[in-house]
Parts: sequence; structure tokens; C-alpha cells
Amino acid sequence: MALSKDRLIGRKAILLLLSEDHDMQLNQLRENNWKGCIGKVGSMDAHKVVAAIETAAKKNGIIESTIYRESHALYHAIMEALHGVTRGQVQLGSVLRTVGLSFAVLRGNPYDQEQEGDWIAVSLYGTIGAPVKGSEHETIGLGINHI
Amino acid sequence: MALSKDRLIGRKAILLLLSEDHDMQLNQLRENNWKGCIGKVGSMDAHKVVAAIETAAKKNGIIESTIYRESHALYHAIMEALHGVTRGQVQLGSVLRTVGLSFAVLRGNPYDQEQEGDWIAVSLYGTIGAPVKGSEHETIGLGINHI
Amino acid sequence: MALSKDRLIGRKAILLLLSEDHDMQLNQLRENNWKGCIGKVGSMDAHKVVAAIETAAKKNGIIESTIYRESHALYHAIMEALHGVTRGQVQLGSVLRTVGLSFAVLRGNPYDQEQEGDWIAVSLYGTIGAPVKGSEHETIGLGINHI
Amino acid sequence: MALSKDRLIGRKAILLLLSEDHDMQLNQLRENNWKGCIGKVGSMDAHKVVAAIETAAKKNGIIESTIYRESHALYHAIMEALHGVTRGQVQLGSVLRTVGLSFAVLRGNPYDQEQEGDWIAVSLYGTIGAPVKGSEHETIGLGINHI
Amino acid sequence: MALSKDRLIGRKAILLLLSEDHDMQLNQLRENNWKGCIGKVGSMDAHKVVAAIETAAKKNGIIESTIYRESHALYHAIMEALHGVTRGQVQLGSVLRTVGLSFAVLRGNPYDQEQEGDWIAVSLYGTIGAPVKGSEHETIGLGINHI
Amino acid sequence: MALSKDRLIGRKAILLLLSEDHDMQLNQLRENNWKGCIGKVGSMDAHKVVAAIETAAKKNGIIESTIYRESHALYHAIMEALHGVTRGQVQLGSVLRTVGLSFAVLRGNPYDQEQEGDWIAVSLYGTIGAPVKGSEHETIGLGINHI
Repeated sequence: MALSKDRLIGRKAILLLLSEDHDMQLNQLRENNWKGCIGKVGSMDAHKVVAAIETAAKKNGIIESTIYRESHALYHAIMEALHGVTRGQVQLGSVLRTVGLSFAVLRGNPYDQEQEGDWIAVSLYGTIGAPVKGSEHETIGLGINHI
Repeated sequence: MALSKDRLIGRKAILLLLSEDHDMQLNQLRENNWKGCIGKVGSMDAHKVVAAIETAAKKNGIIESTIYRESHALYHAIMEALHGVTRGQVQLGSVLRTVGLSFAVLRGNPYDQEQEGDWIAVSLYGTIGAPVKGSEHETIGLGINHI
Repeated sequence: MALSKDRLIGRKAILLLLSEDHDMQLNQLRENNWKGCIGKVGSMDAHKVVAAIETAAKKNGIIESTIYRESHALYHAIMEALHGVTRGQVQLGSVLRTVGLSFAVLRGNPYDQEQEGDWIAVSLYGTIGAPVKGSEHETIGLGINHI
Repeated sequence: MALSKDRLIGRKAILLLLSEDHDMQLNQLRENNWKGCIGKVGSMDAHKVVAAIETAAKKNGIIESTIYRESHALYHAIMEALHGVTRGQVQLGSVLRTVGLSFAVLRGNPYDQEQEGDWIAVSLYGTIGAPVKGSEHETIGLGINHI
Repeated sequence: MALSKDRLIGRKAILLLLSEDHDMQLNQLRENNWKGCIGKVGSMDAHKVVAAIETAAKKNGIIESTIYRESHALYHAIMEALHGVTRGQVQLGSVLRTVGLSFAVLRGNPYDQEQEGDWIAVSLYGTIGAPVKGSEHETIGLGINHI
Repeated sequence: MALSKDRLIGRKAILLLLSEDHDMQLNQLRENNWKGCIGKVGSMDAHKVVAAIETAAKKNGIIESTIYRESHALYHAIMEALHGVTRGQVQLGSVLRTVGLSFAVLRGNPYDQEQEGDWIAVSLYGTIGAPVKGSEHETIGLGINHI
């Protein structure tokens, strides 16, 4: 078991978000046998952020929606990414703040050993702040799980 | 108050870490009037991660060590970044895990308005896992504070 | 002060939930001078879980509703049990998950010494997961407090 | 950098709340070059507590509402004060409890050195408990931040 | 996807701990194709609890120690179980308390669908309290993860 | 059940700490049938803060050390007070910070009804910050529990 320098799933998931040409990057990842999708969501409700990512991941075939273990893996990856975004309490509107986020979901094996199987990375990047235009700063989060 | 598209301090702090040519990127940032530094730390003690970043930031003149408000701003940015890395409890060895991290500290004004003054970003990227070679996955964190 | 092997209030509160004959077990406990009740609640709102347990405990005379110290003891026992159920953030619908729980409340003295007085145990057992049929796994929680 | 015994901003912010003559105390603080305001808020929604304090601070000129760094400093001071009030999860109605609070916001430099600049203290004092008259006990919180 | 009434992994993992004849129960589970082990650990260090469970699970072949995804699944199940035990902060000696725990690890598929594959349950039961004989009450925790 | 305006235990416990004449105030409280004590503790270890308060409360007869329910009530009041002091993670040296605190423990009935019995308040006031002279700001905490 060793992370492959060429297959760092978290790094790829973040660079995909920060890239200026999402589509090209996503296509390139797919050519290299990664499954992935990107999207956007803005909300004061954490559950809407969760739902947006889950829906995108299912619609794009990143996870198989009829298998609970796949949803379970994704859910925990999302929650971990939200810890980075919220830094303390996984709460948005209930503590009077809102987010505007891009997200990426990436699936593949980041390890040298085939037996490590698939892993899933959820990356989030955008802004967090008061529900007042401009009253915000950047935020990022990354969650990684075996799937 | 509005984030400047060209001066996204968090994005820059993360790309600096993920770059393959840290030094060149750091020089370029400095030419554009950002103060910044990068470093590495591996530990099972969260307080050693905090200390490594604080020391680097002071040594490189990112913060003024004789002014407490600057240390205070940096400390909270570090703690917020650690939330992204640890995702739940800001604990490492006490729950039997260890990190190997690169870090960047960046200082400047990411807003269009001069009156927003300086802000500080702390980015962390690396691995977290069991104290067993290879038993680890990637992790990222970002903390941003006014200074 | 020493826990009595025969009067382990937490163990009894959990076995009561996991039993296949709740009513018989509850009757047996009552014959042995325990006060207790059981119930069920399913919700995406943590406050409805709290309310269901409080209502049942008052209706069944487990706590005296006109004495705040009794409600206070019960409330904290419920919150502690919810930590086991939610494992990180005491949140349900706000992070897009739901629970279906059985609960038990038990009151009595689990110690050998009479002076230890009454204690209260709240046990929870059921499922937690996405608001999608079958997308769930089991969960348990136990809170114990002096009353 | 050293806290000035005569200018302990946190102590002053709390004593202001616990005083029996708020107005006189507030006037005295203002004569000594502190900016400050006091107010009351009762709610089951944490976001309403945050909003009440932010509104009062802006209306009374404690912070400059067009500068985000000032709102950012205040927001984190409020959140820290709420940790003292809620002691575990920054949640109220979602875990079936409510607060009745007095609050004070105070701004000034509590250090001997002029270069430490302005700091902001948010103090909260009141009751927390079940949404039932009398089912409550006292609670306090203090948040301090550089501004 | 639906939990099988006969194969509730969490319920089995807890009953195994609370049983008066561990060995017989464990044997019965093994005959029904569950992998499982039980053990005991007492400590003021949370990391020693983690280590004891990981070691037992590897020694008994519940997880394959050369595959990181299996350790990763187990680690998160342990951490979730510790949330139930510690109810707020996953800390023991650092907040002056100690635990005496029995633990069980169980592996198998609790769902009706074969495609759900293996899941792992970690159950903990014992006492938590001050490092003074008898100053303790019971505690329980359950963590469940796909593996 | 209703808090008595004249017997606000939390307010008294905090004013006792902030007073300039602790001893006189403490004597006055004792004359009014409150049990109470005050003390000081400085440490990077949260468990030493807990131990200092517990020891003082036992030595001064605020709680009866041979009855676990009394220790249990005090412990949770201390932990709640520490939430106000630490504001997020009940950690000190492990995240590179230290405290210098005064503490008070007060015991009595703050309610109009005799049946509410004794309650205990733990108040903390002092400084928190880096382990560097002067790099600190004030902090406060209050925990209240039935006993």
C-alpha cells in the first residue's frame, strides 16, 4: 500500500476545481480512467449542498445509486469536505452564513496496489460568509473515502 | 467589499502548495506584493504543526512577532486549516494518526477595496493516516483571517 | 461507591431495547423497583427525538415534570445518547439524514451505596441514513446521568 | 505586548452585562474612549442571536458596516461567545432549547502597546433551557478578537 | 438495499458484548459466516483503545492488514464508536477520565442484497469516569462502516 | 420552578471571580448559606485544570468526595465551563496554547422552590494564549449542574 505519485486523487480533485478549463481537465481525467463530475451549489442549507453533490454523482454514474455502500462512502466524503468548509460546526444558515461552492467528485484507485480498489474524493471550493454581497472569504474542503 | 478575481488569496495559497515549482511561484507572488512562505512538517502532535507554521511565518517576516494581534490572526487561521485536515477532532497522535504536510502562509489584500487591509491565508496539503508506511490518504485545509 | 453487577442501569436499558419481548422485560424491571418506559420515534429533526423521549418519561412518571432538576438530568442524558447516534454533529435533517429509533428510559440506583441515589439512563437503538428507504445502517446511543 | 490591568476588555464587557445600572456603566466606558453597546435577544434560533448582535453593533457604530474585515472580526467573536453559552453544539431549537440573553459589544485596545490596535469583545449572559417557563439555568459567553 | 432482520450486524455486535457467554456466542456467529473477535482494554489514552482494537482485528483475520482500505474502514468505525463512549470530545486522560472497555469487531453483510458486500461493526461497552475506583458509570458505542 | 432573582448562582460565581475583594465576597456568600471556594491554576494541560478545581472543591467541603454523584455533577460543570474557555476544542497544549485561570465553585439552590435542591456552578476567568508572555487575551466560562 502506497499512494501513487501519478494518481493523487485529492490533488486532482482540487486542481480540477481551481482550473480555468474545467471541461478539458475533466475530459483528460476520464481518458485516464477516472470517473468524475463537477457542479455548483449555493445555499444557506448544508443539506442542499449534500443533496446537490449526491445528485450529480448519481446522475453522472460516479456512484451506483442502487447500492447503499456507494452512497454511504460518498456521504461520509461529503461530510468530511464540509468540515474543511465550515471549520468547527457543520452549520450554515443556522449560524447566519451562506456558501457559494464549486464541487468535484472523483473516483478511482490512487494507490499502486490494485487490491486497494476504488476510492472517492469530494472537493469543495468557493466562498463562505454573511448573507450580504461581498461579505465573504474563500473556503476549501476535501473528503476522501474508500468505496 | 468584494473579492478581487485576480487576488484570491486562498486559491493562490493552495495552488502554491500543489505547484511543482514552489520557488518560482513563490517568487512570482512576492513580485506581486504578496508576502508568503512555504514549509514542511510531519508529526503526530498537532502543536508541532502549529509551531512549525508560526516559526516559519515569523522567520520570513510574514507576521510581526512582537505584535500579538498578528500572532492571534495567524493562530486562528492555522486552527481553521487544521479543521480541514482533521475533519472532526483537531487531534492526531491522541487518536493514533499522523500527518505529513506541506504548508503555505500568504499575506495580502484579496479585496478590491484598500480599506479591507491585509488578510492571511494558511494552506495545508499532504497525507494523514495510521503511523504505518502507506496507510494514509491525502488531506487539505485552508484558514483565512483578517490581520 | 461501586457499580453493582446486578444493577447495571446502562446494560439493562440497552438490553430492554434489543429484547424481543419488550413488555415482559419492562415488567420484570418494574418488579425490581426500576422505573422505566420505552417508545419509538422517527424523524429528521433532532428536537422531535428529544421531545418524544421527554414526553414519554413524564407521562410514565419516570421524571417529575414540575421539578426542573429532573428535566435537566434527563435532557443531558438524551443529548449524550444522541452523540452516540450521530457520532460527530448532533444534526439530522440539516445534514440530510434521518433516524428511526426505539428508546428506553430507566431510573434507579446502579451503585451498591444507597447514598448514590437515583440515576437515569437513556438508550437509543435503530437506524440512521439518507431519507431513502433502505439507505441506512444501525446506530446506538447511551446517556447516563445522576438525577 | 501585555494586557493592561486597567483595560481588561473582557472583564469590562461582562461586568457591563451583570451591572444593575447598564446605562451609567456604558456612559462611563464611553467617556474612557471605549465604543460599546448593549441589547437583549431571546430566541430558539442561533442565527437570530447573531443577527441581533450584528445589527446593534452596526447601528451603534461599534463596527463599520461597509468594511468586511470588521464584520468578520465581530462574527467570530459572536461565535466564540456562543460556544460558552451552548457548551458543545452551537445549536438551540434544533436540540429543543431556547435562550434569553443580554449582550454587550465593546471595542478598544486592551493592551499597553498602541500598535495592538482595536480589539472587540462580545459578552452574553442570560438563561438557557427548555421552551417551558422556568425550565432554565444561567449561561455566559465571551468572545474576543482583534479587529 | 434493505437491512436483513436476521443479519443486524450492530445488534449482534452489541449483544456479543453484553452476553454472559462471549465464547459461545462468538462461535455461533462464526458458524453463521460472520468474522468476529472480542477483547478488553482499559486506558486513559484513546490511542491505546484504537490500537488494541486494530491489533485484535488484524490478529484474528477480521481485516487484511496489508490492504489499507480495510484498515481505513476499521479506523473510522472505531472513531465512531468512540463518539458514543466519549459523548462530545474524543478525549480521555487529557480531560482527566479513564475507560475500562470490552470491545467486539464483527464483519459480514447485514443487507439482503449480495452486492452490498462486507460491512464492519465495532462495539464498545464498559465504564468511563475519574481515575478513582468506583467513580464511573457505564458507556457504550457503536461504529458501522462499509469495508 | 423559577430562578430566584436574589439567588442567581451563575452571576454570583462570576462576580466572585471578577471582584477585587474575593475573600470578603466569599464570606458574605457563606453567611447567606452558599458553599463556595476560589482558587487559581495555570497550565497547558486541561486535566490539571480539572484536577485543581476538583481538589479545591473536595478540600473545602463543597462536594462530598465519597459520593460519586457529587463528583459527577462537578465534573460536568467543569467541562461545560471549559467549553467557554476553549471555544471549540477542549484542548490546550495539544494545540499550543496555555491558560492562567481563577476559578470559583459555588453550591446552593438558585430556584424559588425548595424541591429544586442543590445546584453547582463552576466559573473560570483568566487568560488564554500562546506560551509566550503577553500573547494572550481574556477568557471566561461557566458551567451549571444539578447536584
